[in-house]
Amino acid sequence: MIALVEQAMAGDRRALARLMTAVENDPSVARDAIREIYARTGRAHTVGVTGAPGSGKSTLVARIAAAYRARGHKVGIVAVDPSSPFSGGALLGDRVRMGSLAGDRGVFVRSMASRGSLGGLARGTLDMVRLLDAAGYDRVVIETVGAGQSEVDIARAAHTTLVIQVPGMGDTIQTLKAGILEIADLLVVNKADHVGADRTAAALEAMLDLGHDTARSVETTWRPPVLKTVASGGVGIKELVDAIERHMAYWHRGGGRERERERAERELFEILRSDLSRRVYERVGRDGIDEAIARILARQTDPYAAAGDLLRRAGLGSGHPIRERSAQEEE
Amino acid sequence: MIALVEQAMAGDRRALARLMTAVENDPSVARDAIREIYARTGRAHTVGVTGAPGSGKSTLVARIAAAYRARGHKVGIVAVDPSSPFSGGALLGDRVRMGSLAGDRGVFVRSMASRGSLGGLARGTLDMVRLLDAAGYDRVVIETVGAGQSEVDIARAAHTTLVIQVPGMGDTIQTLKAGILEIADLLVVNKADHVGADRTAAALEAMLDLGHDTARSVETTWRPPVLKTVASGGVGIKELVDAIERHMAYWHRGGGRERERERAERELFEILRSDLSRRVYERVGRDGIDEAIARILARQTDPYAAAGDLLRRAGLGSGHPIRERSAQEEE
Repeated sequence: MIALVEQAMAGDRRALARLMTAVENDPSVARDAIREIYARTGRAHTVGVTGAPGSGKSTLVARIAAAYRARGHKVGIVAVDPSSPFSGGALLGDRVRMGSLAGDRGVFVRSMASRGSLGGLARGTLDMVRLLDAAGYDRVVIETVGAGQSEVDIARAAHTTLVIQVPGMGDTIQTLKAGILEIADLLVVNKADHVGADRTAAALEAMLDLGHDTARSVETTWRPPVLKTVASGGVGIKELVDAIERHMAYWHRGGGRERERERAERELFEILRSDLSRRVYERVGRDGIDEAIARILARQTDPYAAAGDLLRRAGLGSGHPIRERSAQEEE
Repeated sequence: MIALVEQAMAGDRRALARLMTAVENDPSVARDAIREIYARTGRAHTVGVTGAPGSGKSTLVARIAAAYRARGHKVGIVAVDPSSPFSGGALLGDRVRMGSLAGDRGVFVRSMASRGSLGGLARGTLDMVRLLDAAGYDRVVIETVGAGQSEVDIARAAHTTLVIQVPGMGDTIQTLKAGILEIADLLVVNKADHVGADRTAAALEAMLDLGHDTARSVETTWRPPVLKTVASGGVGIKELVDAIERHMAYWHRGGGRERERERAERELFEILRSDLSRRVYERVGRDGIDEAIARILARQTDPYAAAGDLLRRAGLGSGHPIRERSAQEEE
């Protein structure tokens, strides 16, 4: 494993891809690899790009990557959206959208399987970003579908989060309700050559004025700019990348300190939780788990009591770790 | 607490509401209360209703509840969607939509805060359903926004899951890609008086014919029916409720056995994980956590090593619970 890490860090792309797969599949490899490379991380600026299917997200990601390449950066792309062309679910025309990125050794594309446990996905994404960071990719773009809590978590893990809207989807306010606006550092109205782009941009500005639901902009001195792009035609990309770099400068002046802390805490607890449940699984075994489930289904026990029993059998304590607080309420 | 449980189970609505709040806020109360009532659960049939904002979901939920009331059932409603009128985010006209349900003592409405940890939300929802079940509500409808993994988890926790589509949203295929179709037991085309309803219904049938992505219908003998409704006008509600009852009968013939098992396992591990991380928190203290985070941010340690260190300090083992499997890979 150490040899693989060294090859990957020395610029061997195949080694990096193999290392990523190993890290994704085996938590013990993840732990060892991240320990090995951690000191080299912290140089990359990460950009989360989120938006509904059909918003032109992948095209925009490709444009951002190309612009960064033109500015001399090495670019990593991590695609979490399973329908993204970057995820290898290749549709006709995807190669075209990838454009000049295909074959460029300054670009490394990695896709994540979006099924499976959520926390696992967010954590796995972070590890991919770290490997790219350590391998010298100094701009990493994370593409997510922007539909649920998992994507919110992933977006939150980036330094700069872009939320893409398109004109006339009519659901601007609905999207905002779903909590997407509050994670945005930059708001992008893509397909700005379509009817209604100005109205959509104005609606977003109005929401920002309200301050309502935009906890982040209130807490800090950063007001998310609203930018218009036509990703398919390359329009507005320079201004967008400039805005990302301005947000990066803001972050380095200290604007991102609290988010960085929150992210570290979330990740720490996610690792704790998954390590501990794995330990229970290993000590009690599949049979022990199955027996507990059968007893729950037969209503011979309840899920909380069954969990307590498994903890005891796994040697992880009394099984009543939280009883003390309500002792006075016991019969 | 025991007194509160007894009052709630005896039909005291205020006691039930207070018990729900206590269960939601305090895991130790949840454990004790669920243990107390668990033997009384298992009688309610739960219906998950999921669909995009604007699909008329809340109106449909109100109609289903009213239809069940007319058939003599007691109905619980658990609203997870924060924009639902059931969640108390009252918009003009919501009282109208609630219609005859307001003031009906055979209906109990509970809303869940949709922020916070995902697993926690799914588990909290299950506990609310159990309390309603034990209190004699024999049909429980769970309303979710249907946008992400959390909603998928919640929907999966129901016996019968309705996925609502509306005509001409144009994103049918996108929604299917997001994995919503595979959780559907019933597909509902609401607003069926709008242009394109037949085409949307036909598209859904075609997807079902493909079998593709509909793992559940292939595994079992249940093919999700596609139903058309106009919730605002009460059209198609009888047929919809009949279909739910048919799915319930199918479930009782054994069709739901595997899902019930999966749900129990997911919940068991969620309880294990949250109990264990709470224990770490209690033993190490806020200061210990903060110190670990500060060291991660300063890159004096990495997240995995920090987690191992916290586990050791919490007395939960060596901190290398998963090392064994890759021992041969160590340097």
